[in-house]
Amino acid sequence: MSNSSGKYPAFPEISPDEIESVLMPEVSQWGLTNGLAMYPPNFNISQGQLAPTTLYPTPFPRQSFEQAISVQTLYNELYAKISQDQDGWLSKRIGELAEFDPEFTGKLWNLYLDAKKRGISQPLALGLFRSDYLLDAETYLAKQVEFNTVSVSFGGLSTKVGQLHRFLNETGKYSLDTGAPFYQQEIPVSDSTALLSNGIAEAVKKFKTAETHTLVAFLVQKGERNVFDQRALEYELFQKHKIKSVRLTIHEIGIKTTIDAATKRLYYKATGEEISLVYFRAGYSPQDFTCAQDWENRLVLETSYAIKAPNLLTQLAGVKKIQQILTEDAILKQFIPNDNDREKLATSFVKLYPLDDSELGKQAKKMALASPGRFVLKPQREGGGNNIYKSEIPVFLKSIDERDWSGYILMELIKPEPTTQNIVIRGNENLREPILSELGIFGWVLFDDKQLYFNEYAGWLLRSKSSTSDEGGVAAGFGCVDSVVLY
Amino acid sequence: MSNSSGKYPAFPEISPDEIESVLMPEVSQWGLTNGLAMYPPNFNISQGQLAPTTLYPTPFPRQSFEQAISVQTLYNELYAKISQDQDGWLSKRIGELAEFDPEFTGKLWNLYLDAKKRGISQPLALGLFRSDYLLDAETYLAKQVEFNTVSVSFGGLSTKVGQLHRFLNETGKYSLDTGAPFYQQEIPVSDSTALLSNGIAEAVKKFKTAETHTLVAFLVQKGERNVFDQRALEYELFQKHKIKSVRLTIHEIGIKTTIDAATKRLYYKATGEEISLVYFRAGYSPQDFTCAQDWENRLVLETSYAIKAPNLLTQLAGVKKIQQILTEDAILKQFIPNDNDREKLATSFVKLYPLDDSELGKQAKKMALASPGRFVLKPQREGGGNNIYKSEIPVFLKSIDERDWSGYILMELIKPEPTTQNIVIRGNENLREPILSELGIFGWVLFDDKQLYFNEYAGWLLRSKSSTSDEGGVAAGFGCVDSVVLY
Repeated sequence: MSNSSGKYPAFPEISPDEIESVLMPEVSQWGLTNGLAMYPPNFNISQGQLAPTTLYPTPFPRQSFEQAISVQTLYNELYAKISQDQDGWLSKRIGELAEFDPEFTGKLWNLYLDAKKRGISQPLALGLFRSDYLLDAETYLAKQVEFNTVSVSFGGLSTKVGQLHRFLNETGKYSLDTGAPFYQQEIPVSDSTALLSNGIAEAVKKFKTAETHTLVAFLVQKGERNVFDQRALEYELFQKHKIKSVRLTIHEIGIKTTIDAATKRLYYKATGEEISLVYFRAGYSPQDFTCAQDWENRLVLETSYAIKAPNLLTQLAGVKKIQQILTEDAILKQFIPNDNDREKLATSFVKLYPLDDSELGKQAKKMALASPGRFVLKPQREGGGNNIYKSEIPVFLKSIDERDWSGYILMELIKPEPTTQNIVIRGNENLREPILSELGIFGWVLFDDKQLYFNEYAGWLLRSKSSTSDEGGVAAGFGCVDSVVLY
Repeated sequence: MSNSSGKYPAFPEISPDEIESVLMPEVSQWGLTNGLAMYPPNFNISQGQLAPTTLYPTPFPRQSFEQAISVQTLYNELYAKISQDQDGWLSKRIGELAEFDPEFTGKLWNLYLDAKKRGISQPLALGLFRSDYLLDAETYLAKQVEFNTVSVSFGGLSTKVGQLHRFLNETGKYSLDTGAPFYQQEIPVSDSTALLSNGIAEAVKKFKTAETHTLVAFLVQKGERNVFDQRALEYELFQKHKIKSVRLTIHEIGIKTTIDAATKRLYYKATGEEISLVYFRAGYSPQDFTCAQDWENRLVLETSYAIKAPNLLTQLAGVKKIQQILTEDAILKQFIPNDNDREKLATSFVKLYPLDDSELGKQAKKMALASPGRFVLKPQREGGGNNIYKSEIPVFLKSIDERDWSGYILMELIKPEPTTQNIVIRGNENLREPILSELGIFGWVLFDDKQLYFNEYAGWLLRSKSSTSDEGGVAAGFGCVDSVVLY
């Protein structure tokens, strides 16, 4: 705890009976009044459920919190620059990687090549990013787990869970015997709803058109349960920026939009309104593409004049292999020449290794087989569930052709301390279970081939998962939204 | 339409398919994001449902809307003054009426007498009122149906349904072929959430105490489904005024609060915080009192130093018989001496008759039997479901002892024009059915025996019900929340 500026905050001591009779109604009704909600499985559209959430904010060292925030604009810059694909650096890497994940990375890459052939008409791109960290229990450093470049979620709900925890604290609901605030420490509220919306709004403002107004298309999954998180951004966009949105699936792009063959401008057919920006909350997994037409639709979007958030190259920049390569200082230096900046970034890196025939790769192969307990093996594709942990690594590697090893990266495990006293609320149930919390920092960057126009921090997210599995609560879905009390 | 300042607005023409596929998700998700919600029957606390609502705002003549608003502070003044019980005017009336409704009016009256004996320590009273009107189709005058002095509801949801309709209009969801706003006319948003909260806050400010802060007790029904309407006020109270609330049933008053025998100050036991104001969202029906202790609890509250919103006399002032008596100009003059003011009030009256042995009563008895089609017969008790309509009146009157007739009032039926083109949304279902809309105007007044300290308008509510029954959608509960487009 040497790097922490204060004492680890105690948790409220509230009996299970009081949690059930007093706090559960407080949390549920605050959540359902304020849209801290999610559709339950097999939902009908008129009924929403409290989003899975923690009862209390999770203690987080202020210094580590600020450390993670402080590097966000550097990460924005880094990923914007590699997305610019100067000297074809990113193209070359992705081209090599595509073969290891032909079903998705490969297809997206081919889409990009096709789009280039047809002509990419819009030079502007918007990156709405989230860099995810675990807190290393020894050093108290926020260590990067992954960098998300597409469909970053929970910016809407994060604002709300912070407001909930702050409300419960300020109204004395954490101190049922005194009614006074329990925490004297700060419970910050993430501005992610407002700041991510600002990013979209600035991109729309920079979009060139003769129209008096344009639409933002939220590209969404059919049957999305996390719709209230998305709606929070949509309503903020309209309330604050007077920008209207329309929700479309990738499939509907082919039916409900039309592209002008000459100008490549994209229009919403029903009203004839131009779409200035396509905000992807889908398209990050092969399941989002149900037929050949869906892939074609994605290609049409890429060639359209609408700004993509993100475009294909930016989305592809988020693969794990790129994350690994960027931890190599010689490469990082090409994009971030300033030594201090690189040092700041490196503080958030864990050791990442290739499993190829390079010197580093050869070393890594040995380590993976000899001391797998320190590592996790990750495939290219984003999202949990595909990772291989510890002793399973040698077994897995031996089961595949060694030529395919280089499709994986070997990552040193981050060792966070589980939080044992928080309580996870799912629907009507609440459970005290050890949780691990991942801190996500949002950022946005508006850029084209030549320059970055905006580069901004955009709030944060704490997501907590049961610590009983390595993957962390996969069975239970995404875990739950949480907030922080800083110390 | 002679008194209307503009043309009756057309309704959007949207196909049933588009309502189902486009507008239903828009309405549900806006509602569930913003707390336009209600618990469904047999609910569990973590799941809320879109509150029953109309798809479109209902056209309402601006002049009639403003007429209803313009008399609200006069009604506030009138009911505050009769509640002051100067010269025992109200006591005398209620004492006479009590025998006709011994189960409730009688019991409340006895509670009041007991409280007087024990001593009523708090002279301040807060009236949070709602005056309900139907629009007379011939004259375009808003005619008063009833004046509610206790537990007036939907102040929270009314703000939200107006925001919903305005959002749908401004974002072009009512004009799916152009995306432009459909209505050029104003869709006002009721400030009732903020203004009713202001009333509570001003009362709390005027409450004398040595404490640094106090609590507001929301007196609520067990299993309340309309909880999000109440929570909207609670959260506004805290957010804007930093006033904390606690929710208690009448039964819990005996368990979770304690009264200081000497000072009569009321305290929330768990924390020792003083309760400055009891806001009744229960206690308006005998079902809210489940045992003798509950009646005792109500009595304790009446003698406590906490401000009641409302106190028993103010609650009792809301019985139908008082509404009838106050339409007699000679009586009205005692409270509202200004001729112009009385004239303004009278514009909102329909003919109300006693069924007693007075001259007017004798006339009314004849009319009730000879031309019942013009009337509705109402018992003392508030709330729908007990009224007797038209041809059923003679049958009913003949079935009871004539001495009991004077427990009823005879009210000329108001003849509103049904709205035929709006659509009512209940859960996942939407139905185009003729509706009748009742306009409620909120007001609040803070007073004691001697004077009125505040007298304020507090927003409005449009509530629409199926017009297929005289009672208007009783089977379907309260109807649905609606808003207005003014013309």
